[in-house]
Amino acid sequence: MSEKVLSGAGLRGQSAGSTALCTVGKSGTGLTYRGYDIHELATHATFEEVAYLLFHGELPNANQLEDYKARLRGMRGLPNGLKKVLEEVPADAHPMDVMRTGCSMLGNLETEQSFEQQQDIADRLLSVFPSILLYWYRFSHDGVRIDTETDDDSIAGHFLHLMLDKKPSDNHRRCMDVSLILYAEHEFNASTFTARVCASTLSDMHSCITGAIGSLRGPLHGGANEAAMEMIEKYSSPEQAKEEVLGMLARKDKIMGFGHAIYSTSDPRNNIIKGWSKILADEVGDTVLYPVSEMVEKVMWDEKKLFPNADFFHASAYHFMDIPTKLFTPIFVCSRLTGWASHVMEQRANNRIIRPSADYVGPEPRSWVAIDAR
Amino acid sequence: MSEKVLSGAGLRGQSAGSTALCTVGKSGTGLTYRGYDIHELATHATFEEVAYLLFHGELPNANQLEDYKARLRGMRGLPNGLKKVLEEVPADAHPMDVMRTGCSMLGNLETEQSFEQQQDIADRLLSVFPSILLYWYRFSHDGVRIDTETDDDSIAGHFLHLMLDKKPSDNHRRCMDVSLILYAEHEFNASTFTARVCASTLSDMHSCITGAIGSLRGPLHGGANEAAMEMIEKYSSPEQAKEEVLGMLARKDKIMGFGHAIYSTSDPRNNIIKGWSKILADEVGDTVLYPVSEMVEKVMWDEKKLFPNADFFHASAYHFMDIPTKLFTPIFVCSRLTGWASHVMEQRANNRIIRPSADYVGPEPRSWVAIDAR
Repeated sequence: MSEKVLSGAGLRGQSAGSTALCTVGKSGTGLTYRGYDIHELATHATFEEVAYLLFHGELPNANQLEDYKARLRGMRGLPNGLKKVLEEVPADAHPMDVMRTGCSMLGNLETEQSFEQQQDIADRLLSVFPSILLYWYRFSHDGVRIDTETDDDSIAGHFLHLMLDKKPSDNHRRCMDVSLILYAEHEFNASTFTARVCASTLSDMHSCITGAIGSLRGPLHGGANEAAMEMIEKYSSPEQAKEEVLGMLARKDKIMGFGHAIYSTSDPRNNIIKGWSKILADEVGDTVLYPVSEMVEKVMWDEKKLFPNADFFHASAYHFMDIPTKLFTPIFVCSRLTGWASHVMEQRANNRIIRPSADYVGPEPRSWVAIDAR
Repeated sequence: MSEKVLSGAGLRGQSAGSTALCTVGKSGTGLTYRGYDIHELATHATFEEVAYLLFHGELPNANQLEDYKARLRGMRGLPNGLKKVLEEVPADAHPMDVMRTGCSMLGNLETEQSFEQQQDIADRLLSVFPSILLYWYRFSHDGVRIDTETDDDSIAGHFLHLMLDKKPSDNHRRCMDVSLILYAEHEFNASTFTARVCASTLSDMHSCITGAIGSLRGPLHGGANEAAMEMIEKYSSPEQAKEEVLGMLARKDKIMGFGHAIYSTSDPRNNIIKGWSKILADEVGDTVLYPVSEMVEKVMWDEKKLFPNADFFHASAYHFMDIPTKLFTPIFVCSRLTGWASHVMEQRANNRIIRPSADYVGPEPRSWVAIDAR
């Protein structure tokens, strides 16, 4: 019976491997990448620096960072075959299905032929994921074939530029940069673990990342910021928000964007993105969405002692940047790719195929019954 | 330190959930689906019966089986958008990348909107996977746009018909049928576990299956029958095979298609497919490939006490049916889909997100260093 209890627990607390990438809930304010606290990274680093840190283990020096950014800028173009595929995806498709299909299709056109190419493939995906998403989005929604090869300095700037067809403000670009840093890595979450299981068969990078995208698509994993947005945008005042959330709690409705499987008192990413949401709210003169968000936070704490996780204030922050809600989770993909690919490389470097056991709860052995006797 | 040892072990022997689908190495000749021994199924059942059994838990009666087969026959057509995507995939693509992309693309066009559709989606994939593979194969290799909507009674017959552009012989069709039965399900192997991890986030069926295809692509998982074929086709006589294999063993080269992670004395699927390989060898008057295969089997047993697994005699059997080697692993996909989808449905019915822990082996907490000081 003890096995049964264990088996239902989704491997919670069981080690499935080792990592040098990240700690969650262990030191500093609760989240470190390669030993650096997330607060220091979100304050001082750019996303490209964090990507380099995750991939290579150390922060780049000035020359390395310039070279790396130039390299990433040069890989934003889409092959024609991939453009044609994206043009076949309807406007009402789930954007995560678009990301999954775009990554998989690229694997046909730029196949990883040996693990010596793994860093090149990871860099290419990092550079091209915003292009994949926004080429499809602008084609299917606006009917335009955009040129994805921009000269924007950063991935954050490139993303916002392609999406809105204009260069973003400095605040918007930096807020997006910080968001990409916050979502970049989070140890053995389900999508990262998917990538590692796939990597453990020695499959190719595109397969690993495609699988991870599919897992992040699940509502128990990605998508909480979209769900939070769908809730808060219904409320026109903090008072209404309070009343509605109390009603939801009374009906035991699930409220997305609060609490965390591992953090117990706060999510170290929350106050960072909350600060940015406030900056952008003041900039646009918002008097509804941010106060509503703060009220929901207060009610959830007062009533349930639940704190906002990384996703909750991302909703309002993204909204202030005019990002359509359905693109929230794909942005998560553009960021978390760095963690996924780093984990794939780490798994490959010290691999054993991940193949757990199962508890059998099916029928006892039985004999064949001819079809006429059934 | 004990955790480290555990973590390197790929979760071997650790339960990651329960299943009623399958036992491996526990009873009968070593492999049961829903309590039925694989030998009984391979002798008496059709693949459609086995698919029904895996999906629904019981064998169908005559009416249920007829209805199910008619239903599957009616779902072989490809949407135009998917055809266009497959036409963009080059002839030198990895066929597993084609399957992964085809499945993912279909998820954009026929999205699972609720879990109530899960059986319909699984049936659709079962019916359409041979069409996806062979539409791409025949278009990219032969330059023809085939009509995938055939009236072939079985999936096995449909597959061979599309591939060779003619109806297969009864023996070929039945050998393919048996092959699909043998590969249908095998508990928590890495691709199935990938599908279950993805399912545990409550993601959609296409994401789960797409991820599983990516994991099966890895050379430590699928592909052993292709590797076996590439080896045995080099030998023109049993004597040469013996000499070469002895040489490989002396050089400690890896020889694919032998031994198994769980079975210790024999693979219960081997003598079934070996018997079929012999039937087809006699039919085509083969005097080389089958005797070569038997010699490799003998040398591996005499020298290493290693037995052929399900993959080894699949190589010659598929070859006698004129199946190109690069399509071997995609056939595995067309079969194992039944196991994967059954596991997805089982995971959903009693779910907790699969999120293991990791042992941290990275740097201690460290402070930010300004870029000029690096």
